[in-house]
Amino acid sequence: MKKTCKYYWEDFTVGSVRDHGGMVLSQEDILRFAREFDPQPFHVDETAASESIFGGLIASGWHTCALAMRMMCDAYLLESASLGSPGVDSIKWLKPVRPGDTLRLRTTVLEARPLESKPNIGLIRSQWQVYNQQDECVMEMQGYGMFRRRPEA
Amino acid sequence: MKKTCKYYWEDFTVGSVRDHGGMVLSQEDILRFAREFDPQPFHVDETAASESIFGGLIASGWHTCALAMRMMCDAYLLESASLGSPGVDSIKWLKPVRPGDTLRLRTTVLEARPLESKPNIGLIRSQWQVYNQQDECVMEMQGYGMFRRRPEA
Repeated sequence: MKKTCKYYWEDFTVGSVRDHGGMVLSQEDILRFAREFDPQPFHVDETAASESIFGGLIASGWHTCALAMRMMCDAYLLESASLGSPGVDSIKWLKPVRPGDTLRLRTTVLEARPLESKPNIGLIRSQWQVYNQQDECVMEMQGYGMFRRRPEA
Repeated sequence: MKKTCKYYWEDFTVGSVRDHGGMVLSQEDILRFAREFDPQPFHVDETAASESIFGGLIASGWHTCALAMRMMCDAYLLESASLGSPGVDSIKWLKPVRPGDTLRLRTTVLEARPLESKPNIGLIRSQWQVYNQQDECVMEMQGYGMFRRRPEA
């Protein structure tokens, strides 16, 4: 892996906040994801959804996670020395995501430390917040990413 | 919602453990999910993946989450009085998931309590573990589900 990346571990400064996005979610997108992965009535059946506590179709929470991931990829991850993630500390699904919503992502770097066992790799703990077109935060996550450190010149 | 369900909040007994699954994950499944939601090289590009720290293509962690969700749906959720989830406490991606892996799900009920604000709804905190065909735990999550309480006879 001799590729040069735009972002290495050193580029994720603690406290930095970046806004990215947005993307529009169609009803067809919601149905397609939910039919494959989360076919609960309020995700796949308009009539059942309208009679549910949600009052209409809503996206699977995992779909919102996957869309946040896509926005991360497009915003910085594909240009970074990303080495994947060991996990997530919390996900809060705060508001329903509905057909036609436009989602955007805000990332905040919470913590950065080198791995003790692998000094050329660093860990970043981030907060990811997904907002809709009414500026309501629909999902909030905190989790980890591993990145190679910037090679010495 | 007058539908009668097989499982209500009362049926999720603390300490109960259930095994479900499994499902086979193809390379095409991995690529299709990753191209849409997580197009990092080790998820979408065989050559780049084989040169990465993972030594070959691996599934997006969000794909594993989505598959765990599907296994939950098939195992009990679609027959339950599920009202969705407020969130997840932790996700640990412990081992790579690779093309051809067969995944299965183990659910353990950790905690059950009625909602104070809505006495006809109860909260369940569960652990979900996904195992591969070598009985390695590839992912472990803890999170919440809300369920209607069993109607009185």
